[in-house]
Amino acid sequence: MNGAESLVRSLVASGVNVCFGNPGTSEMQFIASLDQVPAMRPVLALEEGVATGAADGYARMTGKPACTLLHLGPGLANGLANLHNARRAASPVVNIVGDHPASHSLFDSPITSDIAGFARPVSNWVRASRRALDLGDDAAQAVQAARKAPGHIATLIVPADTAWDSADGVAAALPVEKPDIVAGDVIERVAALLQKATKAALLLRGEALQDIGLRAAGRIARQTGARLLCDTFTPRLQRGAGRVEVERLPYFGEEMVEFLRGVDLLILVCARPPVSFFAYPGKPSWPIPPSCRIATLAQSHEDGAIALGELADSLSVRAPAAVMAPRPHTSFDAAAVLSAETLMHVVAAALPEAAIIADESVSAGFSCYGLTSNAAPHDYLNLTGGAIGSMMAVSTGAAVACPDRKIVTLQGDGSAMYILQSLWTQAREQLDVVTVIFANRGYKILSHELKRVGACADAGRAASMIDLGDPTLDWVKLAGGMGVEAVRCVSLRAFEAAFVSAMSTRGPRLIEAVI
Amino acid sequence: MNGAESLVRSLVASGVNVCFGNPGTSEMQFIASLDQVPAMRPVLALEEGVATGAADGYARMTGKPACTLLHLGPGLANGLANLHNARRAASPVVNIVGDHPASHSLFDSPITSDIAGFARPVSNWVRASRRALDLGDDAAQAVQAARKAPGHIATLIVPADTAWDSADGVAAALPVEKPDIVAGDVIERVAALLQKATKAALLLRGEALQDIGLRAAGRIARQTGARLLCDTFTPRLQRGAGRVEVERLPYFGEEMVEFLRGVDLLILVCARPPVSFFAYPGKPSWPIPPSCRIATLAQSHEDGAIALGELADSLSVRAPAAVMAPRPHTSFDAAAVLSAETLMHVVAAALPEAAIIADESVSAGFSCYGLTSNAAPHDYLNLTGGAIGSMMAVSTGAAVACPDRKIVTLQGDGSAMYILQSLWTQAREQLDVVTVIFANRGYKILSHELKRVGACADAGRAASMIDLGDPTLDWVKLAGGMGVEAVRCVSLRAFEAAFVSAMSTRGPRLIEAVI
Repeated sequence: MNGAESLVRSLVASGVNVCFGNPGTSEMQFIASLDQVPAMRPVLALEEGVATGAADGYARMTGKPACTLLHLGPGLANGLANLHNARRAASPVVNIVGDHPASHSLFDSPITSDIAGFARPVSNWVRASRRALDLGDDAAQAVQAARKAPGHIATLIVPADTAWDSADGVAAALPVEKPDIVAGDVIERVAALLQKATKAALLLRGEALQDIGLRAAGRIARQTGARLLCDTFTPRLQRGAGRVEVERLPYFGEEMVEFLRGVDLLILVCARPPVSFFAYPGKPSWPIPPSCRIATLAQSHEDGAIALGELADSLSVRAPAAVMAPRPHTSFDAAAVLSAETLMHVVAAALPEAAIIADESVSAGFSCYGLTSNAAPHDYLNLTGGAIGSMMAVSTGAAVACPDRKIVTLQGDGSAMYILQSLWTQAREQLDVVTVIFANRGYKILSHELKRVGACADAGRAASMIDLGDPTLDWVKLAGGMGVEAVRCVSLRAFEAAFVSAMSTRGPRLIEAVI
Repeated sequence: MNGAESLVRSLVASGVNVCFGNPGTSEMQFIASLDQVPAMRPVLALEEGVATGAADGYARMTGKPACTLLHLGPGLANGLANLHNARRAASPVVNIVGDHPASHSLFDSPITSDIAGFARPVSNWVRASRRALDLGDDAAQAVQAARKAPGHIATLIVPADTAWDSADGVAAALPVEKPDIVAGDVIERVAALLQKATKAALLLRGEALQDIGLRAAGRIARQTGARLLCDTFTPRLQRGAGRVEVERLPYFGEEMVEFLRGVDLLILVCARPPVSFFAYPGKPSWPIPPSCRIATLAQSHEDGAIALGELADSLSVRAPAAVMAPRPHTSFDAAAVLSAETLMHVVAAALPEAAIIADESVSAGFSCYGLTSNAAPHDYLNLTGGAIGSMMAVSTGAAVACPDRKIVTLQGDGSAMYILQSLWTQAREQLDVVTVIFANRGYKILSHELKRVGACADAGRAASMIDLGDPTLDWVKLAGGMGVEAVRCVSLRAFEAAFVSAMSTRGPRLIEAVI
């Protein structure tokens, strides 16, 4: 057994059995070992952002890491933006990055770079293996580091000689630290504050936004009148008809101020205080009212769902889950113009149970999120770190994680262009992903922003820098070029037909909705 | 005038008048100022690697920097791989990267990251501006740093408040350090070595590979019998019929060993000693014969062309330029099968004078480089740092730099998929770029490598990770989806017709050559 095989077998022993990779020469031993270790499933990506974004999506849906396989510094560099998003999502990810042997790095060949330097800004754990005999243990420790609550990015740099030298075994899985349990006196203190507050809100994140946590939060809301909130960009939220409804924080800082007006107690459950995404001259970064008290029920590494249950139990009245979303309105005006809003009505009505929505519709999604709140129960994944070009890759990984669930990617056309290579992997793996492209032919969010900074000549060179209309992107051709069946819709009726059809068929599809 | 306008005007004052950008919210002031400063030409890229690669190509053809405009850490991250290539090419590039105001960064909003940390591995100069009043001076210093010989990467981080606050002026250009002149005693010492050597070779790079340097090198070769060499991956080489011919180092280390066998003196002219690109078990990293003496005529920051001229003058016999490449063979077997090799014959015969070839054909280019050596005089640009997904972007920048020259990109299908968004910018700007896709439907270079590591089951999972055949990429659709006219060729006759037609028409085209 060489180091590469020891590495792959040790990853499998630690529960990592999917590899999203884009390999090069220094990773050929790892690739060769795949023929020996059938328990590791390799998934080829044609650009590294697809691999890292897919690992993020896989982690969000399974709670455990996949590994990526990246080619030295440049390969890692291409994957960094989606690792930034994964870090913000607290997704566990194990990056395997090939490198030269130390003896060869001395010669500074053209591809040599500071791999650890690239890795550090996005990684909680970085190590360069030193010997083939260490690779198994290094792999086990990387997985352990990645799985530490709430989920971390671990980057293991693998010099080629450690991969080709002899190794002698498979490292056993190391214990995974479970989330800490919140102390009883914290629960009591928060309960006391909650019962005194006149307008409380709970800001939920992480496990607190999945079923058990949400049901407990629903009881608290019913017992106290507290509002239930989630961040604008939350990694994963279980929602839909019959589930406890959660209000999403708006995107712009001044909207957040309005949204939080009057709140006198903000209880953080695995979340941090919300802040404006960007700064603007004369506008607040901090949207929380000055008179509002902030209390932490659970930190991000603590078990928010259990804490919510205990908090609910500590309050006087017991009741079943409350504030449930109603069933969707299945009727809407099918003769209406196709728009981000009307399109969302179709999605809400036709979404199958247990679907996964991955949302990077950007400007469209901000305004239309509410329209899908009462669709059939689904998981809702969001762009977490603002690194545009994420969700088509996240969807790809979610589909690998959940082969029996329908994935719907809501993707702006501008943001899709950063990561369109995802479609090829979806076709190759025949993943059940339907991509809806919101084709408004511009960086619409930036046209808001350009106006906000006071520059708004619609025809000038400034405006041209956020316009994607010349030439028009043809998503039917782009998808077809990567083997994904696609259709363009310019009317709501056509979109409805395409979307309903896609919901009842397996396999990758793309619908370009011209809005 | 706000800081952004001061920045843009100061860049222009320092000679930077092209901006390859992919902006976001924190760059909106920069964008808005474009309406005020018509001397700055903005070129929109839909992914940041296109912007940084284009800046590299622009710099190679003009010798001066363009700026990039990138959106915080994630935007910079997406551009890092091509900045790695630009650094290896010694291309001057000025990156402008937006950031939060310091007061907002404290809140660690989702897109906050360690921008300087991302920048450092690829940058020779990194600064974060502190005040709007400093932005003009910071810009001038960034340009000065980028233009320091032989060419550097300068990254200026621009917090949004420095862009929107008031500023009061335009910084004047700072003096640009010219390359140092090589001392006379170095010339004498190298001349003495050269006259004693029995089998000398000059390894040329940088300015030494442009006309003046090459003519001097040709005289030296004629006078002494020395071989003239260039690196496997050289940023820019002037070559073709009537020019001094330069031998390119082969790619694999063991081929380099053969290539350099018997050389007893290697003279470095703005180059470093060649090394194997990757390490392999039991194979040498260092290909230079142990008995070979290495002498440095010029370091990379010194003027290699002048040093070559002085070296030639110091040798006894004076003669005109020698070792000229002959005119191309315009006849070839048009009925032959379409292959990387036969295709190169067509390129050689049909290439117009003063064309620019940008080569990322990878496996095809290694073997077929020689076939274009006697084409009409042209510039030849190469992937310098091994960060795959470069030359379609480099071409884009070269075309902006040289609007009157035909650009031919030779691009492998696998490598093209990292950077296909370049085509949209080529269409939008109507750049005169013809992209030839070598469609072998695999990472062919890696199939060599997989065999070299001893794993060669052609049908296993390992082999599947370097196979792009399922689904087949359709480059006619992909190009069409971005507004670039394209054609697929499966015969040499069809390729010849398409290529000849593209050479006589202006504007972007793509030819998918199925080989």
